[in-house]
Order: sequence, then C-alpha cells, then structure tokens
Amino acid sequence: MIFLAKRLGKRTIILENRPSIIGYGSVVGKMEREGPLGDEFDAFDEDSRFGEESFEKAESRLQKIAVETALRKAKLNENDIDCIFAGDLLNQCIGSSFGLRNMKIPFVGLYGACSTMTLSLSMASIMVDSGALKRAVAVTSSHFCSAERQYRFPLEYGSVRTPTAQWTVTGSGAAIIENGNDKPYINAVTIGTIEDLGVTDANNMGAAMAPSAYSTLKAYLEDTKTMPEDYDIIYTGDLGEVGTDLLYKLCEEDGIDIRCRHSDCGLIIYDRDAQDVHAGGSGCGCSASILNSFVMHRFEDKSFKNILFMSTGALLSPTSTMQGESIPGISHLVNIRI
Amino acid sequence: MIFLAKRLGKRTIILENRPSIIGYGSVVGKMEREGPLGDEFDAFDEDSRFGEESFEKAESRLQKIAVETALRKAKLNENDIDCIFAGDLLNQCIGSSFGLRNMKIPFVGLYGACSTMTLSLSMASIMVDSGALKRAVAVTSSHFCSAERQYRFPLEYGSVRTPTAQWTVTGSGAAIIENGNDKPYINAVTIGTIEDLGVTDANNMGAAMAPSAYSTLKAYLEDTKTMPEDYDIIYTGDLGEVGTDLLYKLCEEDGIDIRCRHSDCGLIIYDRDAQDVHAGGSGCGCSASILNSFVMHRFEDKSFKNILFMSTGALLSPTSTMQGESIPGISHLVNIRI
Repeated sequence: MIFLAKRLGKRTIILENRPSIIGYGSVVGKMEREGPLGDEFDAFDEDSRFGEESFEKAESRLQKIAVETALRKAKLNENDIDCIFAGDLLNQCIGSSFGLRNMKIPFVGLYGACSTMTLSLSMASIMVDSGALKRAVAVTSSHFCSAERQYRFPLEYGSVRTPTAQWTVTGSGAAIIENGNDKPYINAVTIGTIEDLGVTDANNMGAAMAPSAYSTLKAYLEDTKTMPEDYDIIYTGDLGEVGTDLLYKLCEEDGIDIRCRHSDCGLIIYDRDAQDVHAGGSGCGCSASILNSFVMHRFEDKSFKNILFMSTGALLSPTSTMQGESIPGISHLVNIRI
Repeated sequence: MIFLAKRLGKRTIILENRPSIIGYGSVVGKMEREGPLGDEFDAFDEDSRFGEESFEKAESRLQKIAVETALRKAKLNENDIDCIFAGDLLNQCIGSSFGLRNMKIPFVGLYGACSTMTLSLSMASIMVDSGALKRAVAVTSSHFCSAERQYRFPLEYGSVRTPTAQWTVTGSGAAIIENGNDKPYINAVTIGTIEDLGVTDANNMGAAMAPSAYSTLKAYLEDTKTMPEDYDIIYTGDLGEVGTDLLYKLCEEDGIDIRCRHSDCGLIIYDRDAQDVHAGGSGCGCSASILNSFVMHRFEDKSFKNILFMSTGALLSPTSTMQGESIPGISHLVNIRI
C-alpha cells in the first residue's frame, strides 16, 4: 500500500513511507578530530588543505569524501543515486558544485547557511517519500579557513575574536535516503520561516539564530501535539552558548522547558575548556558531521529511538552586514525515529 | 484517485496530479521594459534602485514585488502559501532571504545560478504534486548592478565588455503552484547534472552552460521518447548567441535538430540591434521574468499548449575563476502543458 505525505497542523509534513538513512559518512579537520567526538568520524586530515591547493578546493574535497564514504558504507555507487541535495557557505556554493561535479548525479543546490544539513535532508526525504526519487543523498560542508577569509578576515591577520564568536567547523556529512527498511527514518519535517529580531552583530550569530530555532520547534510541537519529554533528545545545529541561553529563555516565556532534553552540536564538537573556540562550533559542517556520525551511532546502539534534529542558520552576508542590515535566521527540523 | 510521481527512464520525473501555475508575477528594470517584451511584464521602475538605498536591497525588493504581484493576481495572501522556493545570484542569496523575510512563509533557499527558476519550479511542483505542500511559490531574481559589482567590476570603472559577455537582466518572476485545475501545469521535470567541458573564460558563460543544456535536453527526450517537433517551443534560459550556437552543434552531432523549435530567453529580452547587450541577456531574472509573463501569456492566448522550458546556469564564483577553475554548468528542465 502506498501512502502520501500529509500536512499536520500548519507547518509539519508527516512522511508515510519511512524515508530512511541507509548510509552516512563524515569527515572532519584536525581540531574536530581532537575534540570529544573525534573517534566518531569516518575520516580526518591533519592538514587543513586535504591535499588541495586552496581552502576552497579543500572544502570541495570534504564533500566528495563524505559522499563517497556514505556510498561505500551503503555498498552503493554513484549510479544508484537519483539526486543529490547539497549546499555550503561559500559564495555561489562552490564547495558543493566543484566537489560533486564529476559524479554525474542530478544535482539540487541549496542555500540555508548553517541550516543546510536539515534542509537537504528534508528535501531528499520528502522527494524519496513521494516516489519522485528512489534514492537521494543529502550533503553539506564548511571549512574554518575558507569561511574565515570569506566572512571575516584573512587568517594571516590574526584578528582577535569576540567572546560571542563561534568557530566554523571544518567538516562534512552525507546521508543516503531510501524508503522503508529497518534503519532510522525521517518521520516528519518542519520547514523553517525566516525570523529576524533585529540582531546586527555578525559576531553573535547564536543570538541571531535562536528566534528561528524557537519558532520552528514551537511550530513542530504544536502541530504534533507533543512535548520535549516525548523525545530522547532535541539537537540544535550551532547556536553555541549564547544562542542556546536565548533559546531557553524564549521557550520558557512560552512555558516550554527544553533544558531536560536539549543539546547543541556547536557545544559538543569541541572541548571548550581545552580548545579555544569561544562560544562553540558553527558552520554547515557542524550539524552535518555530527548527525552523520555520533547521532547515527547512537541510533545503532539503541540509545536513541526518537529525536528532533534542527540545524540553525544565519542568512547574512558580509555585504548585508556592511549595509547595516540585521541578521535573519532560519531553522529546519526533522524528526528521526527507528 | 491519487497518483504518485513516477520516474520515467533514467532522469525524468512525471507528475501525475497536474501541479499548475495558478498565479504568476513579473517585474523588470528600465532596459528590459524598453526591450521587445516590455509590455508583457507586470511592473517596472525607471530607476535601478527601486526606491532602495543599494542595488542589493533593490534586488530584494524585486523578489518581494514579484511574489506580491503573483499573489494578488491569484487572489491569495501569504497565509495561503505553504512554502516558498527562492534563490538568486548574490553571495549567500541575500536577494531572496532579505526580500522575503517578512512573509512568514516556510522558506527553502536554492542556489542554481541562472538555472534557479526551473530549479525552484521543479521543487515546488514535485512537492505540491506529492501532497507534502498544498500551495507553493517559486521565485528568483537578478539585478544588473548588483551582479556586475559582485562578479566583475564596480559600475563606476566603466569596464569594456568582451563580445561574448552577456547582460544580467534586472528582473524577477514568481509562480504559484497548486494541484489540478485548468491552468498550465508542470507535467514533467528533469533535474540537471553538473557538466564541465573545461571552459575557463568567465566572460563566456554561454559556452560554459551549453553542454549542460544539451545533456538535460537529451536525457529528457530519451526518457520520454519524444522529439523536438513534439513541442510548440523549447526555451533555454540564457545561453545567448554563443551558447545557443554551441547547443545546436552539440545536438546536431547527436542527430537532434532543435533549430526549428528553439528560442533562448537571453536572445529575446533585449533588442540586440538597438540595445548594447553583446551576446544577449543572462541572470536568474532573465528566464524568471519571461516565464512569468510572456510565456504564460502565450498559454493564455492558446499559442502554446506543450513546451519545454530549461533555465541554464553557470556554477562559478569569482574565487573559483581566480583559482584557475573551469566553469561547471547545470540546466533543469520542465515540461509545461495545458
């Protein structure tokens, strides 16, 4: 019997055919490897160039490694994939397009800033669930060095970072989606709205993203009539310390307590006492590399059975900041079950 | 009875529930208004800033106008839309995120360079067809002034353009999609693969995009077992003069003659004798503004009943070009019928 996706409440889409994560891969840089989750990742390199001539080419290489790793672990090859949903933080998303250009897989480019992992996972899951695609890949990446010089300053300047600043994760994660088997599956998706409460400090992106995380989580909980306690854990992507505190406050004003269940990928990827990352990790690669390693491993060892995973993005550009604009945020949520 | 999307051949997705263009809107700048299609567009402004302080903010305004126009013409408001699929050429896609941030509609950011109109239309159509969304908007934009200073030189330099260079269209187009009524509908979608034959001249994007247009068109024709003559017309997005000639050659080598049916949006938006645009128009806004005005009007007056529309994109960035990379192209195709 075939079921169709249906909308639940105002915003949430319930998927009926168990679009499942049948393969996943992750790759990170040296600092992420040295962090508390270091052993969870499939691959790493001591050198931030990953054998390439530039940081941008290194980021492309990261995406290629993540997808190839996921395919290898799922015993599939490029011909088995109907479509790839990819994005990154670089201008014109060259991390994705150059990283994946030789794969000959139909390619959908996405831009959701650091929310892109759950955006790509949502698009892939909905389209596989619908039957439009049989098998799809969702992938995203970020690289500390390419992000720093594009968004802030060349590394050579040695700029002092503010206490609210976050550290862009060098990493990538890829997931392969296919309907209906015994693997963890995407049960529901809530696509985020753009939320902008007027934060203008480009060194405090956690604060800019927190309202969107709150908005999406609230929409999901209302639509599904569930509570934070109904889930094993609720991950946000990269709110960091400042954004997490703000999310707690926004939720509490609404009578929602998520402290008992919440974790933020940006706060667990580094050892914040030993590694100098200020407010925590960030970047598309943060939630991507953690979802496609640590989180999937917890499903495998049965510690997780039903979780919410919500990557969080700040939709600014250096140009918008220079023109005095505030920072719009967006967060996309997936409910993953087994 | 409910039908599911199905894959036809290797690449093409057939939509079964007639996801239809129930509303559309377009807005352009002064030069496009003065071109041969000037009277087709819904709105224009004599001033390239559209009442805003910067070219980037003007581009955001363009998207807002296009979506609002489409909604007004369809007698809908923001609350009637389940999701918006949007993209543009600006770094971090700020044309879309800032233009649409106040709409409170779930937002999917896309990056497909100048292929984004058919990418957004494809995503919206597949997801409406599947039942995941009831009503969705596809929108994209470009702006000559914001693109020139981001990709090439500040306008104030007065740089000399090469004969192969194209002129970025200042414009935006938006389409509203809903299943099953008597309007033109998306019958099939072919998502493009990334094609890169090694063109490195960033002033000759038509040549860089032509192989991807050929690849996608060929996949569609093979999957559907149809010929160019089966369609009223086959549009490409913005190959311009150079790219169009290359597309003809690539098709002819394969025994496919599309000359009898082909038209390129970049070659019809300006009067190339009277307007100094070299190889033709380009930009996300080129195919977007033409699809959502001139093309839809031809469906209304019954001159078109069955067409192929394929926006074409070059996935380069100024950084990739400076690092000596060639230019990957991508083209996404939709079959529109009534």
